Amino acid sequence: MSLTVVGSIAYDTVRTPFGARERMLGGAATHFALAASFFDQVRPVGPVGDDFTDEDLAILATRGTSTDDVERVAGGKTFFWEGEYGWDLNSRETIDTQLNVFETFQPKLSAAARASDVLFLANIQPQLQLDVLEACDGPRFTAMDSMNLWIDIARDDLVKVIERVDCVILNDAELRQLTEKPNLVSAAREVLAWGPSVVVAKQGEYGAALVTPTGFFALPAYPLETVVDPTGAGDSFAGGFVGWLAQNTAGSPTDEALRLAMAYGTAIASYNVEELGTDRVARLTIDEVNERVAEIQALTQFSLEVSV
Amino acid sequence: MSLTVVGSIAYDTVRTPFGARERMLGGAATHFALAASFFDQVRPVGPVGDDFTDEDLAILATRGTSTDDVERVAGGKTFFWEGEYGWDLNSRETIDTQLNVFETFQPKLSAAARASDVLFLANIQPQLQLDVLEACDGPRFTAMDSMNLWIDIARDDLVKVIERVDCVILNDAELRQLTEKPNLVSAAREVLAWGPSVVVAKQGEYGAALVTPTGFFALPAYPLETVVDPTGAGDSFAGGFVGWLAQNTAGSPTDEALRLAMAYGTAIASYNVEELGTDRVARLTIDEVNERVAEIQALTQFSLEVSV
Repeated sequence: MSLTVVGSIAYDTVRTPFGARERMLGGAATHFALAASFFDQVRPVGPVGDDFTDEDLAILATRGTSTDDVERVAGGKTFFWEGEYGWDLNSRETIDTQLNVFETFQPKLSAAARASDVLFLANIQPQLQLDVLEACDGPRFTAMDSMNLWIDIARDDLVKVIERVDCVILNDAELRQLTEKPNLVSAAREVLAWGPSVVVAKQGEYGAALVTPTGFFALPAYPLETVVDPTGAGDSFAGGFVGWLAQNTAGSPTDEALRLAMAYGTAIASYNVEELGTDRVARLTIDEVNERVAEIQALTQFSLEVSV
Repeated sequence: MSLTVVGSIAYDTVRTPFGARERMLGGAATHFALAASFFDQVRPVGPVGDDFTDEDLAILATRGTSTDDVERVAGGKTFFWEGEYGWDLNSRETIDTQLNVFETFQPKLSAAARASDVLFLANIQPQLQLDVLEACDGPRFTAMDSMNLWIDIARDDLVKVIERVDCVILNDAELRQLTEKPNLVSAAREVLAWGPSVVVAKQGEYGAALVTPTGFFALPAYPLETVVDPTGAGDSFAGGFVGWLAQNTAGSPTDEALRLAMAYGTAIASYNVEELGTDRVARLTIDEVNERVAEIQALTQFSLEVSV
C-alpha cells in the first residue's frame, strides 16, 4: 500500500515576526509527505531543478517516503516562493513567485505511484489533476486541494476534478467562492452534491470543519502560544488527515474515522507551525503526535452533567 | 437571586442579504436579557426614550425579566443603530449611530439591582462600568464585554474594570488589540494576569474559546444553513453563558461548568441569528435550547478508539 501525492516541491523564503530564512525546503507535496509519512509509504510526484540539494531530498525521504517520482529537470530551477507574514500571522503577502520547472510540469507517474491505493492531488492546475486521475489505476480514496486562482481562471476543469474525487479539502473562503454560496454549510453541501463524500473546510487559526452527507464536525486548532511559521500548515493538516485514513481505513471511511483523522491532521499541523519550514515535523515522533491528539480531545470535550 | 445587566436597550435598523427591518428592538442588554432569562431573574439597567413602546417593554420582560431598572427619559429618544451586512454576513457597515438618551446615561441601580449576586457589564463606556461596580454590593460573579472604541480612547479605565471582574468576554481581535499580543493564547493569559479568572474569546462564525488559569477549551459555532441576522449574537452568547453560570454554580465556576455554560451560550446565540432581531429568542423554549446543546456536544466529540 502507498500514498501518492502530486504537487509542488519548492524552495521558500519566509519572513515572519518570529523568524526568517532564505531558500529553505517547502512546497505542498513536501509538507504533505512529511506529515503523511507517519502512516504510509508516501510517493511525492513533482519536479525539482539542478539546484535541489541531496540534503533536501533526504529530508523529503523522512520516515521511508520514496523519492523515486521526484523528477530532476536538467538545466531547470526549483519552484521558488517568497512571502512575508503580518504581525498576527493571519495575513501574508507574496513577495515573489518563480514557477521555474513547475511552469512546464507534466506529471509522469511510475508504475508504483499509479498503483497507490490512496491519492492526494495537492494544489496544482486542475488540468494536471485530471491527467493524474486518468493515469492512476483507480485508487480507493482520492482527496484534493486547490486555490482561489484556479476558481478564477479554470473553474470548469476544477469542477471536473471535484466530481471525480472522494474528498475535497479547501479553505472556507475558497468553498464560498467556488459555490457562490455565502453560508459554509450550504457551500459544503453543494460540493457534496457534485460527487465527493467528504468536504473539509480549513479555517486557519480556527481549525477545520468536516461535512459529510451524514454529519458535521468541527475541531479547533491546537492552541499554541508560539507560532513561528504558518507556511504549510494546510498541507501538513492534509497529510496527517489523508495519511491516517490511508493507514486505518479500508473502504469508505466512516464519520467516526474521519473525525479522528481530523485530529491527527490538526495535531501535525500544530507542530508544523512551531518552527520554520520543515524543521519541526522532520524530527517529530509518533508518540508526540498521539500525545497532542489526546490533548486536542481533552480541550474539546464537555459533559452535559456537571456537578457544582 | 438575580442577574443585573447594564447596557444598551436600542432600536436597530438592520439590512442583511436575507432580511431587513426598520426600528426593531435591539441593544446589548436586550439580547443578553432574552438569553439569560432562561436561567435567572434578569434586571436590565439602561435608558430608553419616549418613543420606546410598551410592546417592546413586554418583549424585554420575557420569561420574568424585571424592567424596573429600565429608565424612561422624558423628552428623550431611544439609542438608535443602523447597519448593513455584506454577502456572507461576516462584514458589516454601521450606517448610523444616534446615542440619544445614551449620551448622558448615568446608571441608577435600584436596591434589587445592586443586590444581584451576578452582574454583567455589557459594552458601555468603561467609566460607567466602574461606577456600576462601585454601586453594587459585591456580586459573587461579575463579567464584562467592551469594544475596540474603548480600547482606543479609554484603555486605562477599561483596564481598571478588567482588574475588578471575574470574567472578560471579548472578540479575539479585541483581546489582541487590548494586550498588543498577536497570539490569542498569550493575549488571554495576559488578561488573566490582570485579575480575572476567566477569559472568553468570541470568534464569530467560528465559535468561541475559553481560557482559564488551568485550561483551554474551544467550541465551534452551531452550523446553520440559514443565518438571517447576526446582530446580537455575541450578547445572546454572553446571556446564555453568564445566565447558565448564575443558575448552576455557587462560588467560582469550575472549568467543567464553564465549558457547559459555553455550550448554552453557543446554542442560544445560534437561535438568535436565525431570525431578525429578537424574534427567535423571544419565543424560544428551554427544551429547544437543551436539544441544541446536546447536538453541539455530538458535533464536537471524537473517539481515540475507532473501529474500521
